[in-house]
Amino acid sequence: DPYLKVFSLNSNPALAEEIADSIGVELGKSSVNRFKDGEVQINIEESVRGCEVFVVQSTSAPVNEHLMELLIMIDALKRASARSINIVMPYYGYARQDRKARSREPITAKLVADLLETAGADRVITLDLHAAQIQGFFNIPIDHLVGVPILSEYFENKGLEDIVVVSPDHGGVTRARLLADRLKAPIAIIDKRRPQANVAEVMNIVGNIEGKTAILIDDIIDTAGTITLAANAMEENGAKEVYACCTHPVLSGPALERIENSVLKEVIVTNTIPLAEGLESDKIKPLSVGELIGESIKRVHEHRSISTLFN
Amino acid sequence: DPYLKVFSLNSNPALAEEIADSIGVELGKSSVNRFKDGEVQINIEESVRGCEVFVVQSTSAPVNEHLMELLIMIDALKRASARSINIVMPYYGYARQDRKARSREPITAKLVADLLETAGADRVITLDLHAAQIQGFFNIPIDHLVGVPILSEYFENKGLEDIVVVSPDHGGVTRARLLADRLKAPIAIIDKRRPQANVAEVMNIVGNIEGKTAILIDDIIDTAGTITLAANAMEENGAKEVYACCTHPVLSGPALERIENSVLKEVIVTNTIPLAEGLESDKIKPLSVGELIGESIKRVHEHRSISTLFN
Ligand SMILES: Nc1ncnc2c1ncn2[C@@H]1O[C@H](COP(=O)(O)O)[C@@H](O)[C@H]1O
Ligand SMILES: Nc1ncnc2c1ncn2[C@@H]1O[C@H](COP(=O)(O)O)[C@@H](O)[C@H]1O
Repeated sequence: DPYLKVFSLNSNPALAEEIADSIGVELGKSSVNRFKDGEVQINIEESVRGCEVFVVQSTSAPVNEHLMELLIMIDALKRASARSINIVMPYYGYARQDRKARSREPITAKLVADLLETAGADRVITLDLHAAQIQGFFNIPIDHLVGVPILSEYFENKGLEDIVVVSPDHGGVTRARLLADRLKAPIAIIDKRRPQANVAEVMNIVGNIEGKTAILIDDIIDTAGTITLAANAMEENGAKEVYACCTHPVLSGPALERIENSVLKEVIVTNTIPLAEGLESDKIKPLSVGELIGESIKRVHEHRSISTLFN
Repeated sequence: DPYLKVFSLNSNPALAEEIADSIGVELGKSSVNRFKDGEVQINIEESVRGCEVFVVQSTSAPVNEHLMELLIMIDALKRASARSINIVMPYYGYARQDRKARSREPITAKLVADLLETAGADRVITLDLHAAQIQGFFNIPIDHLVGVPILSEYFENKGLEDIVVVSPDHGGVTRARLLADRLKAPIAIIDKRRPQANVAEVMNIVGNIEGKTAILIDDIIDTAGTITLAANAMEENGAKEVYACCTHPVLSGPALERIENSVLKEVIVTNTIPLAEGLESDKIKPLSVGELIGESIKRVHEHRSISTLFN
């Protein structure tokens, strides 16, 4: 269908290629550069008039650059008469700023939703939002995909035995349950408590991990503090070996060093965020979400094509 | 008035101090930092409930960082129940992307206006927009200040004689006229023409500059190509000496080198954009717009205070 077009911006060109391959199209021709003073300059080098356009951009670091590229691209597509502008944002940056935890905090995850709609986005496809509630920040359709099946498949193929899936905190129990169901394994939860203010946290493990292969799961691994401390606690409490997995490898600051020096055997991630140069590690294994997203685009596109028949 | 507050973000803290001084308040307490992954973290450290808030931020380089800081600050102020959120944006970034000059170009200057309104801005105070039409991109009040009186005062105090004010292109004639009126001087215009495609531009000077002190004026000096070529043309055509001035010293890429190596005696600018480290030069003289902006804030505030009496 010549009216289905996929464009990539600068955050994740390799994934964009995989997505285009999986739906059998070539990436649209465009370039995103900077003027001398650093302002974003976008060139869309083919017509998009009447097209159903998908733009692939994760708002990973540098988040503000990537977000502005996306907003400006949406503006350009809108003015170039695209029929619909569908944002493929495998990693949704600023998702952790999703509520006022303290006075006078912004809710940047909602701001980003408003900015995307204002620019002219018609739909968002994303994976594993830090909080599912962020879906409600949008007034346009949002397709919320999950990485668990991809992570689970990896572990199944590995043929691990006597697994326990571990959530590093209370917030992640639903996600751990999802993976555990697929692996037909029990779950455990790390119950962090601070007995008194100004005293170190105590990690209490709820569930049986003794002699088992523990798989820690989180949505984001950022500085890797949580996950590596959790891995240590696993080993100290008798786990046989410890894996970790997540959808979004943010991996900032000391993350790589912490992972390298930890007891973790492997850290399975996806390519919603590409591993920055220097972040390659034998321990870190990225899996592709290209087909998952490609399938989602096909579903959106088929539905649109059908509804077009009735217009 | 404890309900009048001025906050500074990261682009121009020195100017923000000058503005606060000129209206006799202390800068509001806030901090703008980055999380480990580069996401903007804002802390507003005093109440703004019911306050008339002015936020000082130029969207100079790094433009996307500065713009996102501003949008997130607006979001935080809105949720913290500020009565009104007034944006003081001495330099309005992306102003040159103000129309579709070619197919499928974005109009980023309009996008920025929409983003500011979406975040929650109630008013914008800015200086010398690249095109006055950008005022019409907003549905909120916009105070459009001009730098010419400040630039003019500098030249008057210098006691230059036999001046001609020169516009480096057709677009800047109105601005040149404004300065010429104040200096009681005639104007000249550089009329660039490309006799054939792929042939160098010819600079034709309309007006008499022979033996005169030429003052070139522009809104922005970016890479300084236009202004230094114009200065050369002035000298070659018999000007006695050549000055340049502008409101916004963007000064990117080769700007400093070009200015240093040019025939220009001095380049007078304002501090809507602070001179980056390494951009100091004996030739470049920044003048403050702090009082000009302070006066504008006072006018806004007095009007609000009066209208409050009738509420
Ligand atoms: N980019 C970020 N990096 C680290 N912490 C963040 C970031 N964005 C927001 N936060 C903080 O993380 C907390 C939310 O995390 P959570 O409780 O896991 O949902 C909030 O209190 C935020 O202040
Ligand atoms: N940041 C920038 N640096 C250099 N050129 C730009 C920038 N933004 C926009 N432009 C281009 O400058 C032209 C507008 O300049 P002007 O004709 O002087 O209004 C447009 O054709 C833009 O493509």
